[in-house]
Order: sequence, then structure tokens, then C-alpha cells
Amino acid sequence: MSAVLKQRIRYKPYLDKIRTAAQCVDLFGAKPNQYIGWSGFTGVGAPKVVPDAVSKHVEENNLQGHENWRYNLFVGASAGMEIESRWANNNMIARRSPHQVGKPIAAAINEGRTDFFDKHLSMWAQDLTYGFYTRDKKENSLDIAVIEATAITEDGHLIPGPAVGASPEIVHMADKIIIELNTKTPSFEGLHDINMPVLPPFRQPYQITDVSQKMGTPYIPLDPSKVVAIVESEFADVVGANSPADEGSKAIAANLIELFQQEVKAGRLPENLLPLQSGIGNIANAVVEGLADASFKDLNVWTEVLQDSFLDFFESGNLNFATATSIRLTEDGFKRFFDNWDEFSKKLLLRSQVVSNNPEIIRRLGVIAMNTPVEVDIYAHANSTCVNGSKMLHGLGGSGDFLRNAKLSIMHTPSARPSKTDPLGISCIVPFATHIDQTEHDLDIVVTEQGLADLRGLSPKERSREMINKCAHPSYRDQLLAYVEQAEFECAKSRSLHEPHVLKNAFKMHTNLAENGTMRLDKW
Amino acid sequence: MSAVLKQRIRYKPYLDKIRTAAQCVDLFGAKPNQYIGWSGFTGVGAPKVVPDAVSKHVEENNLQGHENWRYNLFVGASAGMEIESRWANNNMIARRSPHQVGKPIAAAINEGRTDFFDKHLSMWAQDLTYGFYTRDKKENSLDIAVIEATAITEDGHLIPGPAVGASPEIVHMADKIIIELNTKTPSFEGLHDINMPVLPPFRQPYQITDVSQKMGTPYIPLDPSKVVAIVESEFADVVGANSPADEGSKAIAANLIELFQQEVKAGRLPENLLPLQSGIGNIANAVVEGLADASFKDLNVWTEVLQDSFLDFFESGNLNFATATSIRLTEDGFKRFFDNWDEFSKKLLLRSQVVSNNPEIIRRLGVIAMNTPVEVDIYAHANSTCVNGSKMLHGLGGSGDFLRNAKLSIMHTPSARPSKTDPLGISCIVPFATHIDQTEHDLDIVVTEQGLADLRGLSPKERSREMINKCAHPSYRDQLLAYVEQAEFECAKSRSLHEPHVLKNAFKMHTNLAENGTMRLDKW
Repeated sequence: MSAVLKQRIRYKPYLDKIRTAAQCVDLFGAKPNQYIGWSGFTGVGAPKVVPDAVSKHVEENNLQGHENWRYNLFVGASAGMEIESRWANNNMIARRSPHQVGKPIAAAINEGRTDFFDKHLSMWAQDLTYGFYTRDKKENSLDIAVIEATAITEDGHLIPGPAVGASPEIVHMADKIIIELNTKTPSFEGLHDINMPVLPPFRQPYQITDVSQKMGTPYIPLDPSKVVAIVESEFADVVGANSPADEGSKAIAANLIELFQQEVKAGRLPENLLPLQSGIGNIANAVVEGLADASFKDLNVWTEVLQDSFLDFFESGNLNFATATSIRLTEDGFKRFFDNWDEFSKKLLLRSQVVSNNPEIIRRLGVIAMNTPVEVDIYAHANSTCVNGSKMLHGLGGSGDFLRNAKLSIMHTPSARPSKTDPLGISCIVPFATHIDQTEHDLDIVVTEQGLADLRGLSPKERSREMINKCAHPSYRDQLLAYVEQAEFECAKSRSLHEPHVLKNAFKMHTNLAENGTMRLDKW
Repeated sequence: MSAVLKQRIRYKPYLDKIRTAAQCVDLFGAKPNQYIGWSGFTGVGAPKVVPDAVSKHVEENNLQGHENWRYNLFVGASAGMEIESRWANNNMIARRSPHQVGKPIAAAINEGRTDFFDKHLSMWAQDLTYGFYTRDKKENSLDIAVIEATAITEDGHLIPGPAVGASPEIVHMADKIIIELNTKTPSFEGLHDINMPVLPPFRQPYQITDVSQKMGTPYIPLDPSKVVAIVESEFADVVGANSPADEGSKAIAANLIELFQQEVKAGRLPENLLPLQSGIGNIANAVVEGLADASFKDLNVWTEVLQDSFLDFFESGNLNFATATSIRLTEDGFKRFFDNWDEFSKKLLLRSQVVSNNPEIIRRLGVIAMNTPVEVDIYAHANSTCVNGSKMLHGLGGSGDFLRNAKLSIMHTPSARPSKTDPLGISCIVPFATHIDQTEHDLDIVVTEQGLADLRGLSPKERSREMINKCAHPSYRDQLLAYVEQAEFECAKSRSLHEPHVLKNAFKMHTNLAENGTMRLDKW
């Protein structure tokens, strides 16, 4: 037992439960169709050594596909990519929810080997505690939870690492808990504010009126008798490099900052705006960088995940406080974070995804939500998940939690993307989104590098012009307008001009892409 | 001035502001493009004599279509049908939001003469106070509010009638207020619990943990200096008769009651269930009647509108308390209501639609939400608004507020409806909903007279079988299954089997209906 491990476990009875990862493997093969929960969110804070030991056992014994070694795997969002990829490659994931990253798991889903479902992240963890996802099981519980910790309190409670995610709910639902104590990273103690699930009719209001308020415990409370093993882990989180801002994403950010300035001037936003939510990716980074450089002061962030760009944002002096359910930093980012722990830890709180993504708080605070879709249609329905309506990317995430409940609901996207054969082969503005995750009733603003469509209070017929003129790529404007004109002509005949469509052509740009490699049509 | 009018106005300075409806007409023609707010929700509690006086003036002076007599009309939900129909027939409605009932206004929208937009009712009233819908106006306010009252307090505040709706927000945003004091109906004083809008960053939690709790004032507070006229109204609300339960809706209700019994048995619902929300229509009535007859005791209701069937529900002794934003009763229903005022008024509260439909409270209480769609697709996306994707019926209403945030989100629908030429010409289960208002991430249960599909925790591929086998009409099962099989065959080739579709055929049942009068296909 390493000295640091012993030091981090302040509840001494756990010292008798210290095991190697290999010693935990048998539990995983005990019966068919087990339900497993992992900690983790956006690739950090997930277990590492135990899942890998199970993989190793499966590989060495050729157990791939064996019913005792295929699982229903639930993680708050994405787990460690390499760890989960190995499970997916070993055909160990029968069912997965609600979010994933990595080619092997995406392939398993899209080749039909893994049943995947996604749900609003704040609700997914709640529905787990309702027993909705384990309703076919006699016990209505998770068989095993594997949760990463960075320390254990005097009472046996768990101090998470860089992600809280759904760990409180997974712990709550688990029959047996394995704790992976990560001694590679410093302890994150003091950074968390945890609320355990309370079910209706006993649920109380979340008394949060400010991003920095605490209302929970600094640890995840758990019943020590459920803990079956403590395993030391000496592996750091590994996340991919952040996508740098490019010319297009900088133009999008500039459009957004102009919007914020206009809203402040019109009295619809206070001078320090309202708490910001932003997603992952190069546009999100460009927006954060733009805000760090802009003249707004005393900004606050209420979001689900923080990336390296937030470290600059803090250091710019313009960011007052940030709360999330995960800090997904690169190796360099974590180093910067711990080198400046005294400064950052005062300005940051990590909460469960039930809380970070909660409609109640997002709406009360008046969050400004910004997310990137796969595509948006001319009436402002957005696809966040499935390419061509069928192919799952990563899952819904918190997009719906935030976009439905925010004060200002914003989607940002490049106006067009390259296909294999045409640098502008894919228009991100389409007649009809092939999968709808956000409805026309949920979006206020759509912005591309071309411009910004302000949809508030507009009828669908007004929206289609605004979307085409402000957001569509010039190469697609005439084509989209021709669709609208054709739809209005046909719908005038059938007296259905509220949201004009020609259903037989609604997906023609998509079928043309599949057949001819581009959404540019010869004719409608 | 009638004695009852004088008695109802306890704030004496208002007595100088008593006017006839005709005396208010000039205000409405003062300038082009005015923004008007009315009280009312689901056809009750809306103004009557003032709007009709404006109609009369327009008709007598042939002002139909004149820019000074065309309005942006905002009402919490639907207004009095005859009153609004007359405005629509006179081409007086340039823009309308967020909900409407009546052939003339639907025709104006679907013929392209009226710009209509709909939004979740709890958010719509909030977004109005954000200034989102009046952002093109210099003043960012409503020009005139016409609000029905049944009494005025000593301080000049307003006691609404059978609907609260968006009146608090409309009053808050109005430059000038006209009060229609309805002396035909008894006063509803004591039945309301009103919260006025508070904007972020100052918004506080709604401290409601039980359907019967009060947290507001029994009146709508207003600034008496904004009141420009008090007009007596002696007209009762007129609503259509309730659709009686039929064999199909009774079968749906029976399926639902079986679900509730199963959930109680499994420990996923308490014995008195959780607060119920149900919509309008014959299925909703059958469900309420079924619950009144079932063995559940001490039930509670948290909903947006109560109909006559709730009077029976109260009298069955099984309903403990109900709260809504409107009681939409027939003439007989209102008589029963007032004849038993002492009993009913203790068990009922009316709140604003911001509160009745608030995600915060719906989620906290764990509401059981039930609504009827236009159609649901095999993956459980639902259309609540637009026939064939384009033709607006009434608007979104509170369906999204409730279905997104409820503990159990249920849609109930007949499995098929008649077309003009085929008694089963329209399948309500389709491959791809032509307008998506509720996403696959929002629905737990779909039920028809055929059976009940429990979708919780299922992947899309599992859902499609469950929907087809349990919910689709037998006449359509093979056809829908053939679509699924074709889609799975095609998507296996493109490795996109998460949610299999054949986009070129996704709307073929709808185009066939338009061309051949039925959704039954000769071939895919």
C-alpha cells in the first residue's frame, strides 16, 4: 500500500478492503446481463484500472461476447476514451447510456451491436434513481458501481476527482461499490458541492440564486457496507487536445459578442450578462476567448463542462465564478490548475449533473446557453445527435437541458461543412432536420460565420427568411429559398401555410448527399 | 352604473374611470401595429365587450385590413372563441401568439394572413416579460392590455375570473390597462394565488412542495395609474360541450390505470400516485373518469386546465386537491361549481401559467403528464401542432412544459383516425413525425386503445418494435414493420443503425394520404 494511498483513505476500516484491480474481476463475470455504473463525465474522472483488468481477463480468456461478460453500462456522460474503447472492442457493452465518445463504441452502436439510448443528462440520472432503467431487474438496482475518488473522508464518504457527473445517483442505486482511488492526481477536496437524490413527493427546492452558492456536502455520502473494494489507480486522465479557434469560429464569436452588446444596450441583459453555458469544441473555445478579450466584466459561468480555455478566462480577470459538473482539462491544463489551486479553487464548484443541468436552476438564473448542432433547419429545429437521422454521434448531452430552459437559447454552427468530394458539400442549414432534438420552440438565436438570425417572436415563415439570409452559406441561399417558395406555393393550395413544407422534397438535400456527395442540387 | 358593479369595485378612484366599451374604441385605432394583450386561457376569462366594440367599429366603418386596426395579439392561450373569431374575420390580427381555437383564426394563420408563433406556455409569458416579443418597439411594452376581472380590491388590484393565464405578465408589460369587470359571474375571490414576474438575476425559488401550497397574493397587483378604463361586462364565458368518452378512449384509460397499478406495485409510484396533469378532450375525460372510479385515493392534480369531469372527480372523494391556471367549465359546470362553492373552493387554486406550467415545480413534484398528439413516430417523437408538418391546429400549449419535466411522460392517442375516404385512413403511429414538438428524449409511455408501449430505457431499435406491436392499429402493423425492416437493411449498409430510417420513404405514408386519401400503401 503506497503512503499516499494510506493518507488519502481517512476512514480506516477501508484499509482492509484494499484490493488489486485483478482481484475485482470475478465480480464482473458472476452472472449474465449485469448493470454497471461508472463515474466520469466528458472523459475525465472515470475509472481506469478496474475496467482495464476486466478487459484483460476477457481478452486472455477469449470471453468476448460471452453473456456473463456483456454489460448494461451507465456513465454520466463519456468515460475515459481508451478504457471504454477496449470494452467496446471486446464486445462487452450490450447496452450503453446516455453519452459516449470514441470510434469503437460509436461503431458498436451504429453497427447494431450495442443498444444505446440518450436522454437529457439532468433527467437521465434522475430517471436512473426512479428505477426506470433497471425496471426489468428483480432488484431494481445497479449490480456494481466503479467510482473514481481522490480521497475518502473520516466517515467513509467519497471525494470525487475532476467530474461529479452521475456518481451520486449511481452510488445511490448500486448494490456493490468499487472505489478507484487515484493517487496520480492531487486530491480535489473542497471543489465539490454534492446533492444526493431525493424522490418525489419529498423533493425540496434547490435554494440556489447565484452560481457560487453551496447547498450540499463536499463529498458523496455513501454506505461503507456497500464498498466491496478500494483499488489504487495511478493513471491520469487523458483527453484530446482542444480544437483551436479558426477564422470561422472567430467570426461566430464576434457575431455573438455583438448580440450581447446589443442586448445590454436594450436593457434585456445586465452589464455583466447572465451566467454563461458553453459546450465543447472550437466554436465554444472561440466564444470563451472572445469573451475573455471583450469588455464585459464580472461574468459568471453555469455550465456542464469547463475546458482549458476557461483557465485563460479566469486569468483575464473577467470571469468571476464558474460552476460545472466536470473540468475536462488537458495534462497541461491540470498542471496549470493545480499550480494555481489557491486562485482557481476559490472560483470554482463542481456539482452533480442533475444540478448543473437542472431546468429549475438554469431557468431561475436566466442562463445564456450556447451549443453546436449537427444541422438546423429553416424553421429552427435542430439536430444534435444523429447524422442523416440515423447515425449516432455522441448523444444528446445537456443540449436540451440548457436550450429549453435558458433565457437566451443560442445554437452556433459553421454554415457549411465539407463532404468527401465537395468542400461545401454539406449545408448545416437544411429544409428539415433529419433528427430533431431541439424544437422550434426552444431556440432564440442561430449564428454562423455568415451572420446571426434572431428568431424571437417570429412566425415560421419569417424565420425561414431570417435563417436563409443571415445564416446559410451563400452557395445554398438560392437553393433553400427555392425550397421555401415551392413549399409556400404548394401549401397555399392546401391552406397549410403556417410552416410550409413539401414533404416529398424535405430530405432531398440529404438523399442527394448520399447519392452524389453534395447537398447542392441540380433541381428541386 | 349597476349596484353590483359598484359593489365589486372596492377601490373608489376607479369609479371615475368607468366607461362604456364604445368609449374605449379610439385607443385601438390610435396608431398602426399596436401590441395588445388579453386575459384568458382555454376560452374562459377573456375580455368580451371591449374586443367586440372594436369589431363593431371596424365593421361599421369598413376598416378591415387598415393598418391602424390590425394588431399583434397576445393571450395566455385561447381567448373567447366567438370574440376572437370576429377579430379574425375582420382581418384584425396581424400576429398572434401562442395558442388559438376557432376556425377563422386558424384559417387566417394557415392562409398566411396572420403570423403565428407558439412556444411552451410557461416560457412564452416569461419571454414576454423579457421584452423578446416587443423588441422591435421603441418602448418594449404592450400598448394596451384588456383584462377581465370579477372584483377589484381596496388598493385597486385585480381579482381574475376562471383563468389567470398570462394576465400577471401582460399587466406587467402594459402601458395602458382596460379592466372588463364581469358582473354576470360571481366573484372568484379567494381562488387565486398569484406571482408577479421577477427577472434574473433576482429570481427566487418557487417554494412549493405540495399542490395546495400558496406563495403569492390573492389578486394581480397593478399600478392604478395605468388603468385607463373600467368597463362592465355582463356576458358569460361560452365553451363547447365536452367530448364524451367513447369505447376507444375508455380502452386507453383502462391501459393507463393498469400502468399506474403496476408502478405502485413496483414501488415506482406512491399509493396515491403523484400529481396528475391531463389535457383537454375525450381521452383526457375518460382518464379522469377512470381515475374517479378506480381504487386510488387522495389523488392530487397539478395541471393547466380543469374541465367538467373534474367536478365528478372531486365528488368521487378520490381527489384531494387540484391546481391549474384555468377552470374551463360549461354553463352547467359553472352552475355546479358555484352551487358548491364552499366545497370546491377549499380544494382548488388557480395560478399563473408561468407557475402552473413551470419546469421547476413539475419536476420537483414528479407530475404524471398525459397529452394527446397529432401523431407519434415509431421512435417516439411526437407532433403536437401541425398536420402534415405545415397546417397549424391550435398551438403547442403546455404539452412540452409537462412532458419534458414530468416524472412519467405519457402520450395517448387513438391508433388510427378516419380520412375522408377510409375509416382507418390515418395511422397515428408513423415512421417519422412530420412536425416534432416532443422529442424521443421526452416520452416514457405511449398508449392507444390497442395497448401501451413502455419506452423507458429502450434503444430506438427496441422502441420501434414496442410501438408497432403495442400501439399501432393492426391494419398498419405489417406496413410499419416493413418500413423498419427496410430501414434496418439500408442502414446496416451505411453503418447507421442507431435509429434506422429510409429518408426518401420517411413521409411516404403522408404523401400517400394527400394523393390517395389513405396512409395504406400499395408498396413501400
